[in-house]
Amino acid sequence: MNSNIIFLNEKLNALEFLNSYSSLFIIMDENTEIHCLPILINNFDKFNYNLIKIRAGEEFKNLNSCEFIWGNLLSNFVDRNSCIIALGGGVLCDITGFCASTILRGIDCVYIPTTLMAMADASIGGKCGVNFKNFKNQLGSFKLPISILIYPPFLNTLNQRHINNGSVEMIKHCLLEENITSSILQRIENMKDPHSLSSELKKSILFKNKIVNKDFKETGLRKVLNFGHTIGHAIESLFLSQKKDALHGECIAIGMICESFISSQLYGWKPEILQTIVQILHEYTNGHNFEKSDFVDILMNLKHDKKSKNLTIGFSLLRELGYPVVEIEVTEPLIIKSLEFYSN
Amino acid sequence: MNSNIIFLNEKLNALEFLNSYSSLFIIMDENTEIHCLPILINNFDKFNYNLIKIRAGEEFKNLNSCEFIWGNLLSNFVDRNSCIIALGGGVLCDITGFCASTILRGIDCVYIPTTLMAMADASIGGKCGVNFKNFKNQLGSFKLPISILIYPPFLNTLNQRHINNGSVEMIKHCLLEENITSSILQRIENMKDPHSLSSELKKSILFKNKIVNKDFKETGLRKVLNFGHTIGHAIESLFLSQKKDALHGECIAIGMICESFISSQLYGWKPEILQTIVQILHEYTNGHNFEKSDFVDILMNLKHDKKSKNLTIGFSLLRELGYPVVEIEVTEPLIIKSLEFYSN
Repeated sequence: MNSNIIFLNEKLNALEFLNSYSSLFIIMDENTEIHCLPILINNFDKFNYNLIKIRAGEEFKNLNSCEFIWGNLLSNFVDRNSCIIALGGGVLCDITGFCASTILRGIDCVYIPTTLMAMADASIGGKCGVNFKNFKNQLGSFKLPISILIYPPFLNTLNQRHINNGSVEMIKHCLLEENITSSILQRIENMKDPHSLSSELKKSILFKNKIVNKDFKETGLRKVLNFGHTIGHAIESLFLSQKKDALHGECIAIGMICESFISSQLYGWKPEILQTIVQILHEYTNGHNFEKSDFVDILMNLKHDKKSKNLTIGFSLLRELGYPVVEIEVTEPLIIKSLEFYSN
Repeated sequence: MNSNIIFLNEKLNALEFLNSYSSLFIIMDENTEIHCLPILINNFDKFNYNLIKIRAGEEFKNLNSCEFIWGNLLSNFVDRNSCIIALGGGVLCDITGFCASTILRGIDCVYIPTTLMAMADASIGGKCGVNFKNFKNQLGSFKLPISILIYPPFLNTLNQRHINNGSVEMIKHCLLEENITSSILQRIENMKDPHSLSSELKKSILFKNKIVNKDFKETGLRKVLNFGHTIGHAIESLFLSQKKDALHGECIAIGMICESFISSQLYGWKPEILQTIVQILHEYTNGHNFEKSDFVDILMNLKHDKKSKNLTIGFSLLRELGYPVVEIEVTEPLIIKSLEFYSN
């Protein structure tokens, strides 16, 4: 079980494998229709394809969008030998994967991620799903796309804020993989340089893919990827309820600062290591912050996170740089200290 | 990958394995609440369980029922270590399996089928799903329940028509497995005798389970189980559109008559073999019939069946009794002759 990750060159070859399908359905949104579809679509002329457009944004990551896609597929004679192609960011890949896993009991899909966040993280690993009522990502499945096509020129369609957003997950992969501070700093410098970004991206994708291939259903090892995400998701939910314009990566940067603090306290990191990591990550939070009066909501959100089993929360932390540990119970006072550490 | 099929005795032991779950959710409908739940529920007192009641019937096999179940699960703190239990017939097992496969990216489920149809066929093999708009069973997944609990005393809650309904799938398994007419006739006699029904049921379940374990995703061998179902489903859709009160098994009995006729024509069956099979199956059609003017609708329905790939239809037939063959192309004139054979 493994997705074929294909790094496309400018000529967009390597699409020949799509020839074996009876029909293709390309799912896009109003953004990728304008910015990405025109770059690719000539290469699809030789295939029998249909276009399906959904609304962009997290607020449309729900069953209504799925019903729209399912209806469209069925009306256009989808069969078990059809293939669904996601052309978009993480939200669109998530919706597409879920629809592909549930139509006709599951048919093939291909992701063409168009954002750095989707390339480096969301499209890799087969987790897909949608929100349901107030429950985030609670409907879904594990569905590996047959192929993930990485086309770096799409990065030129993104502004700096969205580059930073995706960079946060790449920094996370780097902290999980590298033990030497100078290597980490060098790799983060590379991410900031448009000329070396795509080679860093490749490293990051291959790192994540290696982890998920070893533990597809997240029963153990894969949990290392949740570093920064336990507190990060709780903060993301807080900001969502406050209607704050915060991106996923910005919230995860804050989560990684808090969870680095917790790691440093539990495992006796040298102070300068914590300082270096915090300094790096602060550049990616977009200045978002919260008040002491928000702590209670953040703690409530933590307890509702779907990773909680019997209402205790297992953290994924760093014993030291490059050495992740999982399912660590953290006391409430230490969680609160980490929130104070960030927010002061 | 395999479901643990447990034949429960009167004492309903063998439920101990449910102890390992953090919480249980029992899905039932208004019928099983009255006729089946009281027989079982004392055995659940030691577990932490919730009851969820949905409406009975094919017309409620849709996303609305799923949304009701998903909402209920999430409001009652379902977690990845919860288990969902279906207490009902084929429709209820289908809905429950789909909900279990899509909540929190898939959690465990257990089926307790309460009808003969569900025991002998629907609950075995991990196909689940719901109808979507006018498309039957087009949303779904392959989800094997952890266990299937067969409790034969539930058969006493069924009337003769529903016993016959389930018997049709058992007869199908018998025709796929047995080559000697006298053995087939003996086994069908056994099905009619309440004292030997449950031992025939056990044979039938183990036969189907053996097939699906060899080809879970129906890429080859498993297709033998579609014998009678290509034309049977097309007739079922016709009767549905005519609002005729026909059960699935009754339509499949007709489908098996037509497809036995096609098999006899293609493979030169002895006339007395065809005659014997047709005579057996006629008892299970409940007298349903259709007109020559319905043929065009039946043919249209055939082409919309989800088993069609590139709009050609692969039939699962019998070269002779006990020797199934799959992916056989059948010409339209021969299909029409088989419909005439039945309806005249």
